[in-house]
Amino acid sequence: MIVERFKAKIVAHLSYFIGSGNDAMVVDPQRDCQIYIDVAQRERMRIKYIFETHRNEDYVIGSRELAHLTGAQVYHGPWPAFTYGNTLEDGQQFDLGSLKITATHTPGHTPGCMSYAVTDLDSGKDTILVCTGDTLFVNDVGRTDFGGPENRQSWSESLYDSIFNKLLPLGDAAIICPAHGAGSVCAIGIADREWSTLGLERQMNPVLQLSRAEFVEYKVNEHHEYVPYFRTMEKYNLEGAPFIGSNFTPKPLSVTEFQSKIEAGAQVVDTRSPSAFAGAHISDSYSIPHSVLSYAGWFIKFDNPILLVNENPNDLDYVVRSLVRIGYDNVEGYLSDGLSTWYRVGFPLHSLGLLTVQELKARLDAGEKLTLLDVRSSAERDEGYIESTCYIYLGHLEKQISDVPSDLPIVSICNIGLRASIAASLLRKHGFENVYNLIGGMSAWHQSDYPITH
Amino acid sequence: MIVERFKAKIVAHLSYFIGSGNDAMVVDPQRDCQIYIDVAQRERMRIKYIFETHRNEDYVIGSRELAHLTGAQVYHGPWPAFTYGNTLEDGQQFDLGSLKITATHTPGHTPGCMSYAVTDLDSGKDTILVCTGDTLFVNDVGRTDFGGPENRQSWSESLYDSIFNKLLPLGDAAIICPAHGAGSVCAIGIADREWSTLGLERQMNPVLQLSRAEFVEYKVNEHHEYVPYFRTMEKYNLEGAPFIGSNFTPKPLSVTEFQSKIEAGAQVVDTRSPSAFAGAHISDSYSIPHSVLSYAGWFIKFDNPILLVNENPNDLDYVVRSLVRIGYDNVEGYLSDGLSTWYRVGFPLHSLGLLTVQELKARLDAGEKLTLLDVRSSAERDEGYIESTCYIYLGHLEKQISDVPSDLPIVSICNIGLRASIAASLLRKHGFENVYNLIGGMSAWHQSDYPITH
Amino acid sequence: MIVERFKAKIVAHLSYFIGSGNDAMVVDPQRDCQIYIDVAQRERMRIKYIFETHRNEDYVIGSRELAHLTGAQVYHGPWPAFTYGNTLEDGQQFDLGSLKITATHTPGHTPGCMSYAVTDLDSGKDTILVCTGDTLFVNDVGRTDFGGPENRQSWSESLYDSIFNKLLPLGDAAIICPAHGAGSVCAIGIADREWSTLGLERQMNPVLQLSRAEFVEYKVNEHHEYVPYFRTMEKYNLEGAPFIGSNFTPKPLSVTEFQSKIEAGAQVVDTRSPSAFAGAHISDSYSIPHSVLSYAGWFIKFDNPILLVNENPNDLDYVVRSLVRIGYDNVEGYLSDGLSTWYRVGFPLHSLGLLTVQELKARLDAGEKLTLLDVRSSAERDEGYIESTCYIYLGHLEKQISDVPSDLPIVSICNIGLRASIAASLLRKHGFENVYNLIGGMSAWHQSDYPITH
Amino acid sequence: MIVERFKAKIVAHLSYFIGSGNDAMVVDPQRDCQIYIDVAQRERMRIKYIFETHRNEDYVIGSRELAHLTGAQVYHGPWPAFTYGNTLEDGQQFDLGSLKITATHTPGHTPGCMSYAVTDLDSGKDTILVCTGDTLFVNDVGRTDFGGPENRQSWSESLYDSIFNKLLPLGDAAIICPAHGAGSVCAIGIADREWSTLGLERQMNPVLQLSRAEFVEYKVNEHHEYVPYFRTMEKYNLEGAPFIGSNFTPKPLSVTEFQSKIEAGAQVVDTRSPSAFAGAHISDSYSIPHSVLSYAGWFIKFDNPILLVNENPNDLDYVVRSLVRIGYDNVEGYLSDGLSTWYRVGFPLHSLGLLTVQELKARLDAGEKLTLLDVRSSAERDEGYIESTCYIYLGHLEKQISDVPSDLPIVSICNIGLRASIAASLLRKHGFENVYNLIGGMSAWHQSDYPITH
Repeated sequence: MIVERFKAKIVAHLSYFIGSGNDAMVVDPQRDCQIYIDVAQRERMRIKYIFETHRNEDYVIGSRELAHLTGAQVYHGPWPAFTYGNTLEDGQQFDLGSLKITATHTPGHTPGCMSYAVTDLDSGKDTILVCTGDTLFVNDVGRTDFGGPENRQSWSESLYDSIFNKLLPLGDAAIICPAHGAGSVCAIGIADREWSTLGLERQMNPVLQLSRAEFVEYKVNEHHEYVPYFRTMEKYNLEGAPFIGSNFTPKPLSVTEFQSKIEAGAQVVDTRSPSAFAGAHISDSYSIPHSVLSYAGWFIKFDNPILLVNENPNDLDYVVRSLVRIGYDNVEGYLSDGLSTWYRVGFPLHSLGLLTVQELKARLDAGEKLTLLDVRSSAERDEGYIESTCYIYLGHLEKQISDVPSDLPIVSICNIGLRASIAASLLRKHGFENVYNLIGGMSAWHQSDYPITH
Repeated sequence: MIVERFKAKIVAHLSYFIGSGNDAMVVDPQRDCQIYIDVAQRERMRIKYIFETHRNEDYVIGSRELAHLTGAQVYHGPWPAFTYGNTLEDGQQFDLGSLKITATHTPGHTPGCMSYAVTDLDSGKDTILVCTGDTLFVNDVGRTDFGGPENRQSWSESLYDSIFNKLLPLGDAAIICPAHGAGSVCAIGIADREWSTLGLERQMNPVLQLSRAEFVEYKVNEHHEYVPYFRTMEKYNLEGAPFIGSNFTPKPLSVTEFQSKIEAGAQVVDTRSPSAFAGAHISDSYSIPHSVLSYAGWFIKFDNPILLVNENPNDLDYVVRSLVRIGYDNVEGYLSDGLSTWYRVGFPLHSLGLLTVQELKARLDAGEKLTLLDVRSSAERDEGYIESTCYIYLGHLEKQISDVPSDLPIVSICNIGLRASIAASLLRKHGFENVYNLIGGMSAWHQSDYPITH
Repeated sequence: MIVERFKAKIVAHLSYFIGSGNDAMVVDPQRDCQIYIDVAQRERMRIKYIFETHRNEDYVIGSRELAHLTGAQVYHGPWPAFTYGNTLEDGQQFDLGSLKITATHTPGHTPGCMSYAVTDLDSGKDTILVCTGDTLFVNDVGRTDFGGPENRQSWSESLYDSIFNKLLPLGDAAIICPAHGAGSVCAIGIADREWSTLGLERQMNPVLQLSRAEFVEYKVNEHHEYVPYFRTMEKYNLEGAPFIGSNFTPKPLSVTEFQSKIEAGAQVVDTRSPSAFAGAHISDSYSIPHSVLSYAGWFIKFDNPILLVNENPNDLDYVVRSLVRIGYDNVEGYLSDGLSTWYRVGFPLHSLGLLTVQELKARLDAGEKLTLLDVRSSAERDEGYIESTCYIYLGHLEKQISDVPSDLPIVSICNIGLRASIAASLLRKHGFENVYNLIGGMSAWHQSDYPITH
Repeated sequence: MIVERFKAKIVAHLSYFIGSGNDAMVVDPQRDCQIYIDVAQRERMRIKYIFETHRNEDYVIGSRELAHLTGAQVYHGPWPAFTYGNTLEDGQQFDLGSLKITATHTPGHTPGCMSYAVTDLDSGKDTILVCTGDTLFVNDVGRTDFGGPENRQSWSESLYDSIFNKLLPLGDAAIICPAHGAGSVCAIGIADREWSTLGLERQMNPVLQLSRAEFVEYKVNEHHEYVPYFRTMEKYNLEGAPFIGSNFTPKPLSVTEFQSKIEAGAQVVDTRSPSAFAGAHISDSYSIPHSVLSYAGWFIKFDNPILLVNENPNDLDYVVRSLVRIGYDNVEGYLSDGLSTWYRVGFPLHSLGLLTVQELKARLDAGEKLTLLDVRSSAERDEGYIESTCYIYLGHLEKQISDVPSDLPIVSICNIGLRASIAASLLRKHGFENVYNLIGGMSAWHQSDYPITH
């Protein structure tokens, strides 16, 4: 029996290849799904089943594409009314080599959530592991807000009952395989640790220490963001997204082609580091450093072409796959030799200021007037901030751009300087001239023992 | 300026990526064409032009697929009436970075053959290299029999004139980039050496030492095989073959699935070595060792599924790509863990005898009665054979199977033992019981100084 | 926190890369240790600690080489007196990002065995996982015979106490990371399932269901093989093996070089499949198919050069690395183009018979006299055999070769045909002429419902 | 016969793998020489011979290491007195499959230069290709200044005679395989085109159009740089450099380790793009963007450790290999997660200004006082520059740093902005505060049609 875990970094999505004998199953496959086929070939196994834990909101699921390539059968829960695959009964069982798979209905995150408990008949009857989807994560549980305020109470109750009545009874010793790791927007407190068991969660997951009533109250009042691109994911995952094949090489564009596509409405996404973006960038481009690519979902449109500016052709594959995983099939090309393609012919560039925390502190101490703009999540904000910062969450910045004072230089602040670079690029796109990114962000501010307000 | 050469081993097909500045062209792309896109990305170039030297008979050209993936324009000569791409004028020119490309009409192999001469304006006006397609190879020239006997004389004359009046005048110093290397069926005498120049060919190519009349007479009388799968290639290369994407991973099959597909008419192709095939194989399978895969074109049907038996999952990619390159998109799967999948459940196996040359010599010396069957090409046959062998070329064996005496044990003979393994498998499929493969073949027989007849 | 598991197939050795923040540790590294450095680089982590669970008998540990390449510190238990690295105290603790590592003395398999319990301070105080070395496997426990009969009782008692008093108290919910998976000679009953927890083992591991007295009695009487190459591993792992670097490409040899090395005493290891070996092989070579390479440890000498015959250059890396992992640094080269290098010049070949189970059954039913030689393990033998087989375990075959009757044809039998191929090659080396391999072995015999004796 | 060309970008060094039958030779191997072994394995060939064309000045030759790994024999010319390998006679011949290799003494670039002419006996007696080392390049010839002014005349005469009396007589049709491509410091005018023939050079190479007297005069007066690291290369290539194995993974360093190594004298090399370096960098680091890494040879010391700052762990392999190729085995590590490792803990950063050509033009037009510093080669300088620039070649900048006026802001200028970034970093290291890099450089200035002075 093998268990292989795959992580799609962009949305911290975890998927699983589980095999026994010559047969295998995949749980919640990512859209670029050749990886599972490669493992199957290496292990000399056939993918027989594809199980979805639920209709996802934050990424495009690869079930239909993987089924198309392998002939495997797709299964999902009773909600919503999927237009492909097979609907499971609660308790339905499957054989896979020496394994017995039991599909268990665990509603709460959505009404159709399924978990998949795995028993190895070669060893005995205990549940070895359970794929918990968005029902139970390491250190947190799934959000319950997707049904709207009217369903939040009942979905939260369902979630509690699914965890306490369906999952935990499988035994402390069962390993859990959740659908997301740290960094996902599907829960706030997912631990960085990728492996856990039902027993560890029962004992240490803070949400599971609450009573049913406390749990429900907590979940009903929890704050989550609904990122605009979720709408497209919901549609794709109900009906199946277009097939993508395995070509993830965008077209190299000359500077003239690039510019004429910009004029025709293309969106420029610059995935270089904050310091490179600050140094020089093309006017009106989005700074979205490739480690925070998922923020594209807040800003980037599905119906205008995307053009990439990146440092190194080796990064392209990662960027294009990541965008495809969240439904952006509209990457039209990239600046063929990176930004130097642009500046070696003398095309104009813009720049931003970078401030180190020492520089900012010195300026503030010297009484300089600056607008400090904190764009972190509210949870991060609650842990403390620099005095007199104004606060707008990055995802809301474009909508609330008119709230940003435009008379003073603006210092964009996040935890490190990555999201602050995005914010700074948005400000520049909206006409703010004098914009700085606080490089090192609150992390550096803390380390330098500068004062924090709460 | 870079020149990168790609060799598709199955038909010894050579294609070229030629780039200068940020632009590139591809000449005669193979069907699995991601390789050119990868080079373009590495070199930060854009593929602008795809040039075909002629409508090929022996492999599926990848022009349409590559154009689809890159937006490049496809060009070919004036014959036949292609249903895609652009038709060239003789002498039409293209710019590519600092290069000037001149398309030159060089009919003979077919009436529409084009050559592409490349000049580097940074250096001067001399032709640097010329892509000669099937007009001129290293040590040989293209065959002129595809137009049927009625056109053979005139096509041969055209070929001579194209070489002597169009190509050689480009200068001794020009490097040639032909469309095939040694091992191709497009000419008999292509040298193993992959690099040459017009000067080297003018001085050393044996066919170019002939007078025009001698040349034409030689070409008109030259013996070539027309392999049955050529018919499909002609159609594909006129109209464009189906797109294939980049998935070359066939499906692993269980022994039951494999057997039921056999019963439904699938063709089993066993690509293992002659000794492995001799040791044990599935009844009625074709032995086609993967270094002589192109022989599939003689026997394998396009409309029945192909099932593979191979040694190692690492070989699959090569086998499937190679078959796709000659139009076999019908590989349905492979025996998941190789032949052991089959025999560990006790399914029946067949075997063949292997004879070393020492063993054969001893048996012959002892007066044993054996049918020796030589299946090599007529050119090889002409260089000498073992006394009293009967001769049928491998490609014709199925059609002439009734000519093979069935009363004595048969020893199948080629040069090494690879094609003899194919022949032995054909004999077994047609009911011959007592079949041997002479392992080492005529090569070993020669090395052992055993007697040769002419 | 990431946990990455690596499996060295040859001895089913499992090693672990565990990282948190920017720091990482490796437990029981394999000797070709670039893999850990690659993961560290990908994850942007530094390897700080290398922990050995014990002095291994069955493979060369890579601690010293990995320490040399990374600057990490090596730690091991109090026995034996290692000549490199640091000796741990029971209970000694280490910080690694947010993790706390506790080294726990768990003697039994050897007096120096250590386990490493991992707590994630970000989550709480529970043990998340524990590296159990050869103390506790999935479904079995470590062998206790390496101290000789005089220590077996006390080592077995220690093992029980280590498991019940040191490991199980860490909690049912802790994931276990043992040092071996199924197929290891370090225990007989390791499950094929690679993931487990203390709770699953407590409830389902058959050995842990015994009382202390039963456990000790069982362990004292358990049958294990001591493979001759263990002697060299013991020395290497006490003192540190020679550094190997990362070159695993053996030298291609011409047929003349190959033959002259054979004459000078080199050992020929033929890693091709049983059917290929049966079809044709070089006289006096060992058949060791590459999926059962660890049997080399029974036969192959450390001080004579090894020459390889293989099917495909792509296999070489795996074969050479695997041999290096068990201390065979003496691969001198391989036959450059596989066996065809040999037979195309007419060098002599030998062959073996293959029998399918149908053929064997028919011959036996027809009353043919055959020596049936079963070479499986005693545990497999106990599950049933073909009537009138004589039994010699493969590892003992050379020593007991004089017990094999030489008057009749011999049929070598294992479970599939891989080990039977080794046995057949040994018989041929010792002068037996008429040798068959039962292809499909007892597995096929069972599937065909032929009679089994107990 | 196969010919594979390898390009080591850092010094535009070209090496060749030439094989025929089962034998191969390598000409001028690079130091990280596993690449040749991999090709040999793929082609099932053995490397028998390693030929050096001459004692190189600009990179470490890999002959000894490759010989050590393969058993091949090393050959070189009669000068200098190498302490390893075999010395060739002029005209000495070697067989390689069907090839005949003739070693030809072609002094001039150095007194010991050899060329290697290759004939394919299967085709005839003409020379197919010739490895010309630094004697003849595409569009230029080797420099003749390494023997000092006293030998320059005679070496230049020798070079002419070698080319006209030894090489060109081999025939117009022979392909040339020189030791360097465009970008090498071994000649000024090497064409970007990588393939040529003797005929093309005879007709188009500008230096070969001169009479013997003109040629000699031209070569005697030609301007070349002698880069300081050449001294170490000369020593290494006389005696053989230390073996390097195949580990090119430097150690990841924490910010504290990094800083303490800086304090102990380590040199920081920042290989990020000019815009990233301008945005933020560690004080006193060298900006050496990875496409102009060879400039390290002017500044970086062999006896102080090198620390790397880079963008992406995927770049490390290229950077470390490239440095190793020019003898820098002293890379001690890299900042583990790039520059963000540094700034997220609030460590101080410096920045530079970037100016676009539009900005510079506007400032100059506005009458702003600026020191414009042109650091290009004298050949580039001769093609025109911006009025009132002061000129110091980049390689001489540190020595002549006191000539740079320190009262005004300085704008560093090269052709694109890469070398200007190096220069800017040197200026900052030497205390200049107000430094700008003209991004896009003279290339952008030209494209913008701004005025040029000569």
